[in-house]
Amino acid sequence: MATTLPESEFDDRLERVRERIVDAEVDAGVWFGATSIEYLTGFDHIQTERPVVLAVTGDRIEITVPRLEVERVETNPRIDAVHHYRDFPGGEPIGVATSMLEGLDVESIAADAEGAPGTMGYQGPTLAEAADAELEVETQGWVSRMRWEKSDAEVDLIRESAKWANLGHRYLAEYTAVGEHPATVSQRASMDASRAMLDTLGDRYVARTRGSGPVHAGYITGPQTALPHGHTANRRLAEGDVLVTGASANVDGYHSELERTMFLGEPTDEQGHYFEVMLEAQTIAIDALGPGVSIAHVDDVVDSYFEEQGVADLAQHHVGHNIGMGGHEPPYIDRGWDDYCEREYTTYDADDAVMRPGHVWTIEPGIYTDEAGYRHSDTIAITEDGIEWLTYFPRDLESNVIDLE
Amino acid sequence: MATTLPESEFDDRLERVRERIVDAEVDAGVWFGATSIEYLTGFDHIQTERPVVLAVTGDRIEITVPRLEVERVETNPRIDAVHHYRDFPGGEPIGVATSMLEGLDVESIAADAEGAPGTMGYQGPTLAEAADAELEVETQGWVSRMRWEKSDAEVDLIRESAKWANLGHRYLAEYTAVGEHPATVSQRASMDASRAMLDTLGDRYVARTRGSGPVHAGYITGPQTALPHGHTANRRLAEGDVLVTGASANVDGYHSELERTMFLGEPTDEQGHYFEVMLEAQTIAIDALGPGVSIAHVDDVVDSYFEEQGVADLAQHHVGHNIGMGGHEPPYIDRGWDDYCEREYTTYDADDAVMRPGHVWTIEPGIYTDEAGYRHSDTIAITEDGIEWLTYFPRDLESNVIDLE
Repeated sequence: MATTLPESEFDDRLERVRERIVDAEVDAGVWFGATSIEYLTGFDHIQTERPVVLAVTGDRIEITVPRLEVERVETNPRIDAVHHYRDFPGGEPIGVATSMLEGLDVESIAADAEGAPGTMGYQGPTLAEAADAELEVETQGWVSRMRWEKSDAEVDLIRESAKWANLGHRYLAEYTAVGEHPATVSQRASMDASRAMLDTLGDRYVARTRGSGPVHAGYITGPQTALPHGHTANRRLAEGDVLVTGASANVDGYHSELERTMFLGEPTDEQGHYFEVMLEAQTIAIDALGPGVSIAHVDDVVDSYFEEQGVADLAQHHVGHNIGMGGHEPPYIDRGWDDYCEREYTTYDADDAVMRPGHVWTIEPGIYTDEAGYRHSDTIAITEDGIEWLTYFPRDLESNVIDLE
Repeated sequence: MATTLPESEFDDRLERVRERIVDAEVDAGVWFGATSIEYLTGFDHIQTERPVVLAVTGDRIEITVPRLEVERVETNPRIDAVHHYRDFPGGEPIGVATSMLEGLDVESIAADAEGAPGTMGYQGPTLAEAADAELEVETQGWVSRMRWEKSDAEVDLIRESAKWANLGHRYLAEYTAVGEHPATVSQRASMDASRAMLDTLGDRYVARTRGSGPVHAGYITGPQTALPHGHTANRRLAEGDVLVTGASANVDGYHSELERTMFLGEPTDEQGHYFEVMLEAQTIAIDALGPGVSIAHVDDVVDSYFEEQGVADLAQHHVGHNIGMGGHEPPYIDRGWDDYCEREYTTYDADDAVMRPGHVWTIEPGIYTDEAGYRHSDTIAITEDGIEWLTYFPRDLESNVIDLE
């Protein structure tokens, strides 16, 4: 049962980043993005208007943080020195960061941005503007790109996430009944699954959430399902409702995605038809997955099937996306992906247009009528010679009909 | 009971934005940011890698959205035309947006960014790069700045939020007991308060959440409270625990913030002392608030008091921030705020250094020992001639001690 990353994972990530620093002929790599900083060091923080700046050189890792993160980062075994400013804007985050770089004898860097991002209204100078000495700054998207291919240890965490998502989803199905309130059923399922996860993992659980549990299970219901990004309305569950569920769990910062189209009572013939078309589309997409496969191709095969079934105009989005530290991250399974990789405004090229071992995909083709939406989502890893299903809640119609009792 | 904004609010916002368009001598204002788009039109959406682009001219409001948002935006009475692309990157979001601008005969714009933000890994051309004809693009932060001074209608929503946050907080206090699990107590309090809110508001409730309820109440407990941005650990509540709570509710997209330092059982003399110092610091800060007051001054008076009490080294952050559509938005009550407004890298000036009617502040000075943290947070509006407390859970020590039974 994998619940945290082994130390070797960070050694490997740092080694790969240091290779890129050498290749780029710069003195250091620099990151402002919270997810990238967590990926390289294991230090996770809530990104706010207070900048955090990580510097990696050939032999040192140093960081600049606001005062309120000092105790949280000081215990990190991978970070050699912690610099801090009191707060923002009274402190000088970028000034402290450029002093840190000067202390490291750094004159040229490749950074994930020229300055800290505008989170929560932050405004500030670029690193080059704030530096006393001349500082050459180029930008890079190294970590974002490295995150595409997950290691075995990362896939282990997503597999563990899928287990607890499945429990949350099971509770959601169990608590669903005519007259119940969707928000209450969702919150109760999340609570009970979170508690089971915490009690099962015990000391192995790595805290990642504030004020709630690690598992979330919920749904959009009835007419709202016709909108892929609908909300949970203030409307009790009724006989005949279509439900589009969603469940995930946070395992040491990694996520999975499980969604099912369910029916509260027997579906009509029309509903059953759309369900089966959606299910077949998902099966076709999953059958098409594998190492070396064109990412765009998987969206194309679903589109061809929808055309054949006369429902192409009911599709509102592409087939899926990568998932890991982000609940939603590139690449995307979209028919335009291969063209996109070759556009001059992307950091990608033709090599980035195919599926590779370690990609973890959500596969979620959907169709949407005026009355309801139909979408399953499963989380599936590409392996050396095929695929591995990480989510496993049954997909067939019968398993997704909730009896009226 | 205010649960949504009146139509006049949007008329007013649009009028003010159109004045700025005239002053800037451009043909249109353009926005990529989800919160700004919601502020101007009432259309809310989940910001993803799929760009959404709003254009406002002297007499038209048009928008470019991905296919999956079409039905959600078409019902919006303020938007005159909806353009869409299938999905990203197969569709051409910026191409559709520049066609929309050409259709509006727009040749110069002031936009909140040169291109869509890099959300969830988005990469794409700027508007100027994508336009067929020449397009003059300057950047602006109009809406972000307009949001500082809330209208009466906005303060009404935050006041309503504070009511439901108070209920969630009351439940949290009631369910807290030795041996209970923090995640479970938090989720149960959130669930019960959300349900009471939904049942009370009925049709007046404007759905804003997916898969959970509108109220969140939770805490960090015991040793984690020593870290201002700590997590909820997998550790049951124990006698003598310090708790730092947090509660809020989403009312038509607006938020409040209520935090209390509580004790599970009678505090020690040392804990009681730090609580009283924190409470007095909060009182001093609130007494200092008012229209025309220097924002930085409020952080200074707290700092002076902490110095006097010999606890300045236990403070890890400034006094507070503005709150509204964002849970955390500028300006910040920080001793450096006035200097910051005059820096060349900000869009602010000296006029932005003082409190004004309609600012809604969290007031949350904190002190942190090695063992525990002490912080209340209240949400307080600046009025024409003083202040209004929006949160109202009792602040005194006795009300924040939970009996062991």
